[in-house]
Amino acid sequence: MLVAMLITLLALQAVAEAPAPAPKAPSEIVAAAPAADWIDIAPEDLLVMQLTPGAKGAPRKIVIQLMPAPFSQPWIANIRTLAKAHWWDGTSVNRVQDNYVAQWGDATEKKALPAGLGQTSEMGYALAIPQELNRKWAELVERRFAESKSEFAKGKNIDPSAAAKLISRDPYSSGTDHWKGWPVAAGERSFWPVHCYGMVGVGRNMSPDAGNGAELYTVIGHAPRHLDRNIAVVGRVLEGIEHLSSLPRGTGALGFYEDPADRVSIASIRLASQLPEAERPRMQYLSTETATFAAYADARANRKDAFFNVPAGGADICNVPVPVRRKP
Amino acid sequence: MLVAMLITLLALQAVAEAPAPAPKAPSEIVAAAPAADWIDIAPEDLLVMQLTPGAKGAPRKIVIQLMPAPFSQPWIANIRTLAKAHWWDGTSVNRVQDNYVAQWGDATEKKALPAGLGQTSEMGYALAIPQELNRKWAELVERRFAESKSEFAKGKNIDPSAAAKLISRDPYSSGTDHWKGWPVAAGERSFWPVHCYGMVGVGRNMSPDAGNGAELYTVIGHAPRHLDRNIAVVGRVLEGIEHLSSLPRGTGALGFYEDPADRVSIASIRLASQLPEAERPRMQYLSTETATFAAYADARANRKDAFFNVPAGGADICNVPVPVRRKP
Repeated sequence: MLVAMLITLLALQAVAEAPAPAPKAPSEIVAAAPAADWIDIAPEDLLVMQLTPGAKGAPRKIVIQLMPAPFSQPWIANIRTLAKAHWWDGTSVNRVQDNYVAQWGDATEKKALPAGLGQTSEMGYALAIPQELNRKWAELVERRFAESKSEFAKGKNIDPSAAAKLISRDPYSSGTDHWKGWPVAAGERSFWPVHCYGMVGVGRNMSPDAGNGAELYTVIGHAPRHLDRNIAVVGRVLEGIEHLSSLPRGTGALGFYEDPADRVSIASIRLASQLPEAERPRMQYLSTETATFAAYADARANRKDAFFNVPAGGADICNVPVPVRRKP
Repeated sequence: MLVAMLITLLALQAVAEAPAPAPKAPSEIVAAAPAADWIDIAPEDLLVMQLTPGAKGAPRKIVIQLMPAPFSQPWIANIRTLAKAHWWDGTSVNRVQDNYVAQWGDATEKKALPAGLGQTSEMGYALAIPQELNRKWAELVERRFAESKSEFAKGKNIDPSAAAKLISRDPYSSGTDHWKGWPVAAGERSFWPVHCYGMVGVGRNMSPDAGNGAELYTVIGHAPRHLDRNIAVVGRVLEGIEHLSSLPRGTGALGFYEDPADRVSIASIRLASQLPEAERPRMQYLSTETATFAAYADARANRKDAFFNVPAGGADICNVPVPVRRKP
């Protein structure tokens, strides 16, 4: 029995002395996600954009996911119509502005549009905050309220009502979060999708409803969040953004190419649902309503893996990109 | 006299009916800055980096400003020593990771270092918040305190003490600001330079003091603020970042080029003070302690010019880049 006790004591000591497990990298957390955490993206929600081949004839394919309802649906209906009409084939990337956007469409601005394009007068942002997001935030505020009360009990002068302001420390909104796979921000009575790296938006002229969806851009620099609510966000690049972000910058105003020969030709843009089954990219995104995503977001905000010594203690919404992958 | 009165009345009416002046774009505010608002950058604080010529033999010159004291000075002393020894000549850009960094140095990791490199054990961030920044923030908190009291008088339950938390709504720090021309962030007892687009930092291995300044990178994507305080920031690209940000992305781990032939050769890196007078770039930055900068920052946070309909009401520190220019 003494031996048994000794072994037990040694075992306990071994437990006590075992080093803490190495902090996981965000990528490791994502790699360990159960299959059920991944959500298939429907082929009608994917755009496949082919530029003409690049250096050494290498293909340049870009896969874009279109935003789900309730966001920007009038523009997205138009984008589907344009893709089905093969309208973008032979158009080009006409503008690449450093730390801002790469933009494509009809450089001549004279190409006839297909029939069936709808009005786009309704901006995508005047939407009520979804109930589940309200509930999640209410719980967060409630928890902060409790924490504040406990701080208050210690003699610190903290007003719990201020917690409502601190859902996220975002300079552009009352709060940000991920919702159904997308980064969103909310004001007092509305919510909207945000301009992170790789987001796709609708180019337009001065009038808010001027853009019909034929002129598109993607963000290739620091998140230009001042565009939020001013321009319709319609999707995000899932794969191949390097074919746009590494293009030479245009030297004209706003990064437009001055020499038409510098424009980069678009071979085709199709909905994945227009492609033969074998050619469709099968993409998934990590559900943002899972424990895996919460752990991933926490790890992004508090890097302790690799060479990180000082965890940040927070992360802005655009620094927590939603993981995507090819369906295994 | 009646005629005079009538003319006066008409003039008053004309004033009353005159449309509000068009909101100024941030760039217009900067263009109107008096000469005294611009600060010359000393040639010892400028690095001039020449890649080998690009497409059609076009030169690829990058101008970098080194950070002033108190930040990262041990690394900056090393960088000056390396430039004076022509150490980088013949090295290369070895890593370009999309939405992250372009990194350069000796790909072989075997090139002998010059004599005189110093230790870099002191991290650049363990610095006291400068008095003037503390004073500015205290005034801001005081003003918000007064505003909150007035809200409170209207029956709203807002605790003025919470104002201290709201110097800036930054997820990574207690507050951010511009200070002596640079974006900085502060915690309770320290302050540090932040990783915005175009900032230059010191590559390193696992140990915090592993980087000596020979391996450098610049940010070419959304601000990776989680690197703040983990890596020494030593400068920022003032001109020519497009020669790095538009390079092909590496396909190896972390964006390293797998084929050595893909590396981009560095012809030379020199301090401007090493160059003949006629070849020195003469650069200026807009003083961040001026009314012009305050108006510019406000306009960046509340865009009403051009096609903007919904001013953001705020901006993150990296979305208010410090204006720089060639000295006129």
